[in-house]
Amino acid sequence: MTHQLNPSEIRIFSGSAHPALAAGIAEFLGVPLDETHVSRFSNDNLYLQLGASVRSRAVYIVQSLAPPVNDHLVELLMMLDIARAAAAKEIHAIIPYYSFARSDKKDAPRISVTARLVADLLKCSGATHVMTVMLHSPQVHGFFSVPTDHLSSRPAFEQFFLQRDLTGTVVVAGDMGNAKSAARFAKTLGLPVAAGNKERISDKEVRFTGLVGAQVSGFRRALIYDDEIATGGTIRSLSEMLLGEGIEEIWVACTHGVFVGQGFEKLVELPEITEIVTTDTVPQREHPRLTVLSVAPVIGEAIYRNASQQSIGDLFVYGE
Amino acid sequence: MTHQLNPSEIRIFSGSAHPALAAGIAEFLGVPLDETHVSRFSNDNLYLQLGASVRSRAVYIVQSLAPPVNDHLVELLMMLDIARAAAAKEIHAIIPYYSFARSDKKDAPRISVTARLVADLLKCSGATHVMTVMLHSPQVHGFFSVPTDHLSSRPAFEQFFLQRDLTGTVVVAGDMGNAKSAARFAKTLGLPVAAGNKERISDKEVRFTGLVGAQVSGFRRALIYDDEIATGGTIRSLSEMLLGEGIEEIWVACTHGVFVGQGFEKLVELPEITEIVTTDTVPQREHPRLTVLSVAPVIGEAIYRNASQQSIGDLFVYGE
Amino acid sequence: MTHQLNPSEIRIFSGSAHPALAAGIAEFLGVPLDETHVSRFSNDNLYLQLGASVRSRAVYIVQSLAPPVNDHLVELLMMLDIARAAAAKEIHAIIPYYSFARSDKKDAPRISVTARLVADLLKCSGATHVMTVMLHSPQVHGFFSVPTDHLSSRPAFEQFFLQRDLTGTVVVAGDMGNAKSAARFAKTLGLPVAAGNKERISDKEVRFTGLVGAQVSGFRRALIYDDEIATGGTIRSLSEMLLGEGIEEIWVACTHGVFVGQGFEKLVELPEITEIVTTDTVPQREHPRLTVLSVAPVIGEAIYRNASQQSIGDLFVYGE
Amino acid sequence: MTHQLNPSEIRIFSGSAHPALAAGIAEFLGVPLDETHVSRFSNDNLYLQLGASVRSRAVYIVQSLAPPVNDHLVELLMMLDIARAAAAKEIHAIIPYYSFARSDKKDAPRISVTARLVADLLKCSGATHVMTVMLHSPQVHGFFSVPTDHLSSRPAFEQFFLQRDLTGTVVVAGDMGNAKSAARFAKTLGLPVAAGNKERISDKEVRFTGLVGAQVSGFRRALIYDDEIATGGTIRSLSEMLLGEGIEEIWVACTHGVFVGQGFEKLVELPEITEIVTTDTVPQREHPRLTVLSVAPVIGEAIYRNASQQSIGDLFVYGE
Amino acid sequence: MTHQLNPSEIRIFSGSAHPALAAGIAEFLGVPLDETHVSRFSNDNLYLQLGASVRSRAVYIVQSLAPPVNDHLVELLMMLDIARAAAAKEIHAIIPYYSFARSDKKDAPRISVTARLVADLLKCSGATHVMTVMLHSPQVHGFFSVPTDHLSSRPAFEQFFLQRDLTGTVVVAGDMGNAKSAARFAKTLGLPVAAGNKERISDKEVRFTGLVGAQVSGFRRALIYDDEIATGGTIRSLSEMLLGEGIEEIWVACTHGVFVGQGFEKLVELPEITEIVTTDTVPQREHPRLTVLSVAPVIGEAIYRNASQQSIGDLFVYGE
Amino acid sequence: MTHQLNPSEIRIFSGSAHPALAAGIAEFLGVPLDETHVSRFSNDNLYLQLGASVRSRAVYIVQSLAPPVNDHLVELLMMLDIARAAAAKEIHAIIPYYSFARSDKKDAPRISVTARLVADLLKCSGATHVMTVMLHSPQVHGFFSVPTDHLSSRPAFEQFFLQRDLTGTVVVAGDMGNAKSAARFAKTLGLPVAAGNKERISDKEVRFTGLVGAQVSGFRRALIYDDEIATGGTIRSLSEMLLGEGIEEIWVACTHGVFVGQGFEKLVELPEITEIVTTDTVPQREHPRLTVLSVAPVIGEAIYRNASQQSIGDLFVYGE
Repeated sequence: MTHQLNPSEIRIFSGSAHPALAAGIAEFLGVPLDETHVSRFSNDNLYLQLGASVRSRAVYIVQSLAPPVNDHLVELLMMLDIARAAAAKEIHAIIPYYSFARSDKKDAPRISVTARLVADLLKCSGATHVMTVMLHSPQVHGFFSVPTDHLSSRPAFEQFFLQRDLTGTVVVAGDMGNAKSAARFAKTLGLPVAAGNKERISDKEVRFTGLVGAQVSGFRRALIYDDEIATGGTIRSLSEMLLGEGIEEIWVACTHGVFVGQGFEKLVELPEITEIVTTDTVPQREHPRLTVLSVAPVIGEAIYRNASQQSIGDLFVYGE
Repeated sequence: MTHQLNPSEIRIFSGSAHPALAAGIAEFLGVPLDETHVSRFSNDNLYLQLGASVRSRAVYIVQSLAPPVNDHLVELLMMLDIARAAAAKEIHAIIPYYSFARSDKKDAPRISVTARLVADLLKCSGATHVMTVMLHSPQVHGFFSVPTDHLSSRPAFEQFFLQRDLTGTVVVAGDMGNAKSAARFAKTLGLPVAAGNKERISDKEVRFTGLVGAQVSGFRRALIYDDEIATGGTIRSLSEMLLGEGIEEIWVACTHGVFVGQGFEKLVELPEITEIVTTDTVPQREHPRLTVLSVAPVIGEAIYRNASQQSIGDLFVYGE
Repeated sequence: MTHQLNPSEIRIFSGSAHPALAAGIAEFLGVPLDETHVSRFSNDNLYLQLGASVRSRAVYIVQSLAPPVNDHLVELLMMLDIARAAAAKEIHAIIPYYSFARSDKKDAPRISVTARLVADLLKCSGATHVMTVMLHSPQVHGFFSVPTDHLSSRPAFEQFFLQRDLTGTVVVAGDMGNAKSAARFAKTLGLPVAAGNKERISDKEVRFTGLVGAQVSGFRRALIYDDEIATGGTIRSLSEMLLGEGIEEIWVACTHGVFVGQGFEKLVELPEITEIVTTDTVPQREHPRLTVLSVAPVIGEAIYRNASQQSIGDLFVYGE
Repeated sequence: MTHQLNPSEIRIFSGSAHPALAAGIAEFLGVPLDETHVSRFSNDNLYLQLGASVRSRAVYIVQSLAPPVNDHLVELLMMLDIARAAAAKEIHAIIPYYSFARSDKKDAPRISVTARLVADLLKCSGATHVMTVMLHSPQVHGFFSVPTDHLSSRPAFEQFFLQRDLTGTVVVAGDMGNAKSAARFAKTLGLPVAAGNKERISDKEVRFTGLVGAQVSGFRRALIYDDEIATGGTIRSLSEMLLGEGIEEIWVACTHGVFVGQGFEKLVELPEITEIVTTDTVPQREHPRLTVLSVAPVIGEAIYRNASQQSIGDLFVYGE
Repeated sequence: MTHQLNPSEIRIFSGSAHPALAAGIAEFLGVPLDETHVSRFSNDNLYLQLGASVRSRAVYIVQSLAPPVNDHLVELLMMLDIARAAAAKEIHAIIPYYSFARSDKKDAPRISVTARLVADLLKCSGATHVMTVMLHSPQVHGFFSVPTDHLSSRPAFEQFFLQRDLTGTVVVAGDMGNAKSAARFAKTLGLPVAAGNKERISDKEVRFTGLVGAQVSGFRRALIYDDEIATGGTIRSLSEMLLGEGIEEIWVACTHGVFVGQGFEKLVELPEITEIVTTDTVPQREHPRLTVLSVAPVIGEAIYRNASQQSIGDLFVYGE
Repeated sequence: MTHQLNPSEIRIFSGSAHPALAAGIAEFLGVPLDETHVSRFSNDNLYLQLGASVRSRAVYIVQSLAPPVNDHLVELLMMLDIARAAAAKEIHAIIPYYSFARSDKKDAPRISVTARLVADLLKCSGATHVMTVMLHSPQVHGFFSVPTDHLSSRPAFEQFFLQRDLTGTVVVAGDMGNAKSAARFAKTLGLPVAAGNKERISDKEVRFTGLVGAQVSGFRRALIYDDEIATGGTIRSLSEMLLGEGIEEIWVACTHGVFVGQGFEKLVELPEITEIVTTDTVPQREHPRLTVLSVAPVIGEAIYRNASQQSIGDLFVYGE
């Protein structure tokens, strides 16, 4: 516990997506995690009950939009609705992993910019404020109609890697779209940066045709930096190409380690991937080559400052 | 095909909940069912695309909120959003089974009147009009902020049973809350009505302690009339009690035959239940003792009249 | 006076529908009732002025929607508007009798679900919170878009009748729609329950064709339990039928004793109706056979807890 | 009948304030006036039903906000709500007399700018367009959030008086606030203009201390021009002063002849007031010295042009 | 400094229209004026940054809509948006000169009631409260959808002139539209009042054809009272006519001394105009015949009372 | 003229930013460009009047947000407001150059995501649909709450360059953020692509430290592809670097040639820049080395298809 808020003024509830993270945040703040009762009617409809009075209080609802995303989304909307109808004073949606951020533009006709739709649904359901971590693109911030704090995981990663011997290491972005963010990260670590030149073969397959930016030849270790890993296919392909270019060891750093299906296994099958560093914006397994940095302190700190009228600008992502 | 609308003026799409019903409605109207492409991103987010231009057209989106309800709800919201962003002129949400209607009141503190919340989400996502069939309670109609047509399945049931020999039959409502609706149904058939006196033992179990209204002794057949069957537990218990009272044969009539888990089997195990009559507001199996009345004609007729500026009042449920 | 709130933080105003009740609530809270000046322009438009500054304060406006309902409704909307324009921090509409709740469904084509319309008008005029007592149906709660506390009068009635000798008494609901609520009431008193089987002959006339549930023969006293009495016609007819069934004495318990026209006289003409127990959600007369239970304490307590961040769930109506 | 619209495309309904005017408008347009059923529940709540299907049609609802204004306002709001819920395509509120326009500013603390509130309520209830005649001040136009046509009665008055011998006549405004409008009127008639210098003694009494502008001495006839007469007190006082100044005959022209209480009698008591010319924006009596100009043609013409995509700018009031 | 507010609870920012006035208000309140960084992107888009954290605080943004009005308006909207997105608790738009108030009615077809449009834009951008001084017409108050305080400059003028010898002085309104306000002003000073009879020759030229009300002959000094002076043309013409009527000395009192182009010079060219008294709702020059009364105290006092829950009714303009 | 729409059904107006483009669009559609009267009140407020009746019509308002952007923005908002208040059926904001798109993320604390704010202001003012060309980032599409068509200028550029001899040419993106879009462009032309590695030295200065992607050595001509040029600084620096790498000739292709200050001169000073190709989304000069491709056909075609219910998907930008 680092900070202490007045427990009678705030309520923290967790949806069923990631109660451990919610508990970590509550512990950081020195307040209890209030209970949420979740069950289903016989017709599959969710039945939710918040376990503590929220009247005239600041309510924080922690829910990561990890798979199964639709169940977790509807749960979150119902929790917001309950808090509103029960006369909460402020309703904060704490969404460590806003998976819908990937649908941030119209790259085909008659599709949904779902990241905007869901932002609207959150407001419609009662959210008065949103907190989230590392959105897929910084513009998604502008989709929200309520004040939104866009927190950064980069300081946690920097702090972690600065304690390592980084000799012979080059930072590699998985995609040119990520190159700017990776470049900032590399700069702090005093390392050069390269970016994979990805080509999409089919919906499920990508191929790397080379690298742009710094050459990787001459380096022995690559530090791949990405925002989200799901099936692991991109990182696997990129790793294989890097190994072909003479890289001997690979570290992977990634904020949202979603790892669906065999996504995690696909990576650890490569013995040269000696360490995967991710955060707990989604629930994580335990594995000897997996290091999980918790976002509970950065979220907790943001809540603390928000509740005590302090600026939280230095916890933000600015245009990464 | 009964009616013909100008295919260039309207578009009909189906979510993945019940494409067969959507096809039936389109066939009734003499227009093609347009394609909807549904897939998922690797992080479990839905990716939807409507397969035909909707610009300046009346768009009808057919989606039953059958299990898995959250997936079907988010699909529906995204389809509405796509139609709105693609400049449709009118956006009609056709929801044959609005499962959330069961959450229509606050019978415990800090729960959600989800039927109202979802009505708001539909509007927020772009629906300009809603059509639905037999809501759990007639007041739910008032939850919608956009014009809503509340269609009745009763005429279909009446037409069906009036072709049978109803001698020695008594109509039985599964619950006193349904008694009024059952009484109207019975009156049209010229039959007496009784209602089960249900007591809830636990979340999953109910017990019938008797009947109110007309006595069933003296009758040989009971026609149980209900709006929704999910686990089948209530109907099974009621049937057993009726058999104990001397009833020899049971017919079950129910608009929304959701039949989750072993719900259907629980009924057909009783040989005295010789016929179960339901509708296709949700997808149905085939079974020798199951008769499925289609709601495609009533929905199609409502769409037809709506599109051709005719009154559809006689298709409505009025305060049942 | 039971509780004391800081008078500088809240303001209580009364519309012209029921100032005595507002005064009772203010007295319960230990704060003054602020003045409201009501007059009319020569063209019949209302001219209202709130008599105390509301800037940055919590404002409670007490107005029962008793006859003349339209005058009282417009008064209420104007008072809400004044509070909003004068920068009140919170605006609570305290509506002990929400008469529009009777229009809660569409039981004919092209009518208004006025209970929903008025809920929207209240929000549009500035209400940020609503308190009301015993709505006609529990679903009406879902019509409100602002947080709404639905208070119960049942505890007051239970407390009152538990002090009486209830031997030989049966609870009777005036209508099958009320049966559930009456059953809960009867259970607390340890009494059996029956319900009148009402048939509507014309707009103004009803006929009782019998009773459902417990038999009344063998009982000497009936305790009729209803939510609202206006013309008294239903209760009179029911009473006559009960007397015909051998009942010797009748008590009537009813939350909203509106008693329009000769409604009250129609009841007291029957000497067997020895006691009518109602509340002051609307103004009441004095009469030797009329007992008026005040809702000022339950409303006052709800305001007190609301203003002091305490849960008020135990004062609520849950799905009655 | 002057114009003919397609009766299947539009519906005209009248509230109970002024059915004769609505009938006149319908006749002008060559379409039937559809029925509105108005009754009351026993608890005084209005029960309204529109008598013809409005689905996908343009609906015109005619309601003057004449006394009793609150009843007429709530009726109007309910009619709008019915049209919206029944899926009308356009909903036009035709309000010949918008009495609330008098409450157009804050001239005391904590009062309501009711003209703005009611404009918001109309939109909240479903109005998509408003038509009205001669608002108390032209700024009230800006209170409406939906397109609003502000029709002028001046052409009707001008046409009427230009047929008279106006020798020796001076136009007199009842108030300096009306002076601009009266000046425009006088200019068209080729007459000079004066304005009464009114002083308010009490809420119900005014006194005229003189005239500003043109002198009335030398004229034998005054044509008093005002927008609204309610109690008649102002016009009576003004008339008496004019008679004292040597005027021998008085004509009164006034758009909204509300004439509450003895308002009309107070005027005709003075034999020198030989003619009162008003319109039927509110219901009028018959009297030998009263001439009623109908606004049905100007409203009908505006509806006709609106429905047939023609400009109606020349029927407007521009900043009078 | 007159009052002291808790500096940690409020933030005051100034747009670039009138920083000196904002500084005066801040000084009155004893709090610092926070910095606003204003620059432009190379494509002419404004780039603004508020220089202090606003999280959970009451933010006051001071911006006069003086020329260049569009730049100042967009600046203001952006500052409101920043405060909202950065989670301010209250956002007060302090607009000493609301120039758009002149566009308050439709006096031609297809023009904008811009005073209403801008009021809507302010709300859309995040304003929760507006303060302004002396609107062109009192009805404009009703255009705002958020609570609005309409402050008066009249007390400042009265206080100023009551210290002078007013013998032989008559108050003259520049226009009959201003006559009521001028009459109130004259009454406090114990002086008679007259009004110019203005005729508009073209867009840029007016002519005075006489005076209404009190005669000016016999007076030696005229005190012209107006709300806004821009080109000075009206006041110059009026002055010349007054001099022609025998007036020897002219004082001009005017709340909003905008003085565009040669507006100021046009007045001081006349030596008989010995004193021009205006306020600093817009930036002012220095000149020996110009007296500037500051509105900082009345605005500061209003903010102080607002922040400390006191009534500010006595600072208001009531229907002037 | 390519297409012909029914002139009585639509109205096209131009703000003062770029009337020539609006005229071109109108000509393409075979309809007249309606007049807009723009002037200013003496206090600098805009006074606008639309020159043709818009009642029940589809209104297209063409306004590029070119410098002076604030004047053009306020003009646009007022024109939208006029169309709404005058009862237009559809209101289309045609914004060829949406300059605010550059403010699409929060890259510093307490700044405005102005691209979202302005999108909200457009809706607030009455826009029901937006058309724009080549937004700075594709995510900005998601900022709009009304249906928005994001048109592409790429086909025009491709058509232009495919008619040239492209031997020895390499496409160069001015920034890594543009690399994806440039790569698509290069692919259609069958050319390789490189991207400048830009470093920002100060607000006004950038430096290129190298190139990523294809090497430019071996090529004799570079085709620089960018979305917007304002001061020309970036393109000048990039050109100098390319010349240093051995490039002999440079073509510049850019959608929005804003060219503020000496922006254009800075480019043509370099004799190796032999051709600058841009569009008329903003007004353009004439110059022997400047080719202007008109967007009038693509906008006109989009309007035509929109008005005639055809899909316009193939005119769109998909995620460029």
